[in-house]
Amino acid sequence: MWSGSKDKALRERAAEVIPNGMYGHMSTVLMPEDYPQFFTRAEGTRIWDADGNCYIDYMCAYGPNLLGYGRSEVMDAVRKQQAKSDTTPGPAPVMVELAEAMVAMISHADWAMFCKNGSDATMMALMIARAYRGKRKVLVAKNAYHGAMPWNTPRPAGTLPEDRAHVITFDYNDTDSLADAVREAGDDLAGIFAAPFRHDTFADQSLPDAEYARTARKLCDERDALLIVDDVRAGLRVTRDCSWETVGVRPDLSAWGKVLGNGQPISSLVGNDRARKAAGEIFVTGSFWFSAVPMAAALATLKIVNSTDYLERMQDIGDTFRAGLCAQANDYGFALRHTGPSTLPMVLFEEDPDLRVGYGFCREAMQRGVYFSPYHNMFINAAMTEQDIAETLEATGAAFEAIKRSRNSLKPSAALAALMGG
Amino acid sequence: MWSGSKDKALRERAAEVIPNGMYGHMSTVLMPEDYPQFFTRAEGTRIWDADGNCYIDYMCAYGPNLLGYGRSEVMDAVRKQQAKSDTTPGPAPVMVELAEAMVAMISHADWAMFCKNGSDATMMALMIARAYRGKRKVLVAKNAYHGAMPWNTPRPAGTLPEDRAHVITFDYNDTDSLADAVREAGDDLAGIFAAPFRHDTFADQSLPDAEYARTARKLCDERDALLIVDDVRAGLRVTRDCSWETVGVRPDLSAWGKVLGNGQPISSLVGNDRARKAAGEIFVTGSFWFSAVPMAAALATLKIVNSTDYLERMQDIGDTFRAGLCAQANDYGFALRHTGPSTLPMVLFEEDPDLRVGYGFCREAMQRGVYFSPYHNMFINAAMTEQDIAETLEATGAAFEAIKRSRNSLKPSAALAALMGG
Repeated sequence: MWSGSKDKALRERAAEVIPNGMYGHMSTVLMPEDYPQFFTRAEGTRIWDADGNCYIDYMCAYGPNLLGYGRSEVMDAVRKQQAKSDTTPGPAPVMVELAEAMVAMISHADWAMFCKNGSDATMMALMIARAYRGKRKVLVAKNAYHGAMPWNTPRPAGTLPEDRAHVITFDYNDTDSLADAVREAGDDLAGIFAAPFRHDTFADQSLPDAEYARTARKLCDERDALLIVDDVRAGLRVTRDCSWETVGVRPDLSAWGKVLGNGQPISSLVGNDRARKAAGEIFVTGSFWFSAVPMAAALATLKIVNSTDYLERMQDIGDTFRAGLCAQANDYGFALRHTGPSTLPMVLFEEDPDLRVGYGFCREAMQRGVYFSPYHNMFINAAMTEQDIAETLEATGAAFEAIKRSRNSLKPSAALAALMGG
Repeated sequence: MWSGSKDKALRERAAEVIPNGMYGHMSTVLMPEDYPQFFTRAEGTRIWDADGNCYIDYMCAYGPNLLGYGRSEVMDAVRKQQAKSDTTPGPAPVMVELAEAMVAMISHADWAMFCKNGSDATMMALMIARAYRGKRKVLVAKNAYHGAMPWNTPRPAGTLPEDRAHVITFDYNDTDSLADAVREAGDDLAGIFAAPFRHDTFADQSLPDAEYARTARKLCDERDALLIVDDVRAGLRVTRDCSWETVGVRPDLSAWGKVLGNGQPISSLVGNDRARKAAGEIFVTGSFWFSAVPMAAALATLKIVNSTDYLERMQDIGDTFRAGLCAQANDYGFALRHTGPSTLPMVLFEEDPDLRVGYGFCREAMQRGVYFSPYHNMFINAAMTEQDIAETLEATGAAFEAIKRSRNSLKPSAALAALMGG
């Protein structure tokens, strides 16, 4: 029987000593009522909250869990490196091995830099694009998330118009809109940020149109600007390379993070020789950017990526989940829009403009042991099995049944209404 | 017998796959010739490079090593938390405990937020200061280092004038200069960034003048702006509280990092109730900001900080090191300027305008097993013993002897000359 009393008590303590009790993308402020904020255990495909409730986890820590929590080969590498060194006055040799592994794996990459946050990697891309030819304008698709620094955080509080004075937006997958933005940049175009596919919150996902991707490449070449693919969220869940290899387009820079160390803190920017000089000119750093343990974890992760069928299994499992969930929805009289790659599914309900049905469904599923998000794309991991999907569908069947009964009394999320109104 | 062939081979491999072979504050580009770039082992007060050379380490990973590398109580906490959870879809309860511990330890703090890089914490301070009353101007002491983001990185490549359009500089410890800067900000003053003491590279350090610190507080109060102390580098090496408690001045915000998890990746911004609402309005986040393992490490570190005489022992050891090194220099006919708190010593030679003597000395000490920096403040850690200082002085005696002999043939560092000229 699900309960949330310990989580509630922790939230009350947190509210005293943390602004709003929590912040950032892992805050449950926009989640359905009763979603747990604190977790005490993670293993394979499962997470446990502070009350001891166990969930099959479809958020994977918002991405990092690629191979299953605590994957043994990765944790062995962590322990082995921890016994030797971690944060010292310089990197360990594993940094060179890891950079070599990134360059070997990613077709467009001639070099790699490492950092901690995905935002570090996209910030470095921004700076390198500007250092490259001394130009200023950077193009970003409307509503695309590329991190949470003043130049790109999705909320304006604490930022200035100057922070994005030279950022121009365009519509994803719209070559005309992209061309207009390039014209607006004139002879001052530094770079184009491309999401690997459209994965905005609260919206259906869409894969990149190949013509759009080729146009982005062509416009960058014509203007001597850098093309950047932000693979922080999608990396290694689409292909074992930069995600735009799937549409045959190679960027100059790509940003990586989240999955790279299967949950150990590491992110990366990789680039080609064209961008190497500019990459060597910027000054960026961080106290823990050169720590050896997350690099050892990343090397172990990439070894599994390159030597197993983890991706094909994830894709199969994602397809099974999608087919099962959509069929089940249909049986209960609901229609789903289940969009994006099957390894990064976004699930929204038809005829649900204020998302009250989706929120109600997720809450019912959560209380039955399945952790979904009603507004953010979800994540499949390679530890998931057919049995996990079967257990998931058992819970979601009961959740559909419950919202079918309560449909007319479901209320929209107050926090979501406030956000959308504001 | 010291050798550097394996390090050299690693550098050659690195040059292929990393821009300039290395970047950021741990690059040895500005270090004396032959300084090792790569390290393979760290334990207590010692580090080993890729060639197996062992050093008594006075850089402490540029700060993080507070209690000795691999300090057992901290690593026990790391392993214990690793067995439970690390990066999951939300924080573990340890986040609440850690925030409570920060608030209990730091006099001005009513709340805490956690992040990864020191730069994350100073960026959050910048954003909160601007969100607080919607004002824009931020004052920063000339040459003070507060991170490496476009608004504050010490080198301009890849940044725009807009990134620091509302940053005004003043001279550290100069109340007139500070007052002028506040006048320049007019009714648009968002905040004043204060270094806990002046710890610029290539320069003597100076402790904060109490009158200057009080003036900064008073000016912020008069203008309804936030006072920020950036304790990322100096935190827990000056006092068990915000460093400006030593001069009786409480900021609204203070930034922490480096030592917090004794080498595990975590940084923090803490603040008072005045700044709480603004802190809750900004949107900042990172993939690994809520990971439980570094928080468990930080909690274990703070427990040692609050229950042992680690600080007094560090201060004693720092005093012994300072007295011993200065006396020894004198014996060999050199005069040192050994400035700043004894736990964060900066050592420069008199009559050494291009630092060639300091560089020569550090190189000789390095080849005898002592790892110093000739241009950056150094760091004492709590694992250091009288025996470490005795061994250090044995090496430095030989190093003074060597540079006394070679003094007239010492050459300035070419990389340093290029930096200073450029």
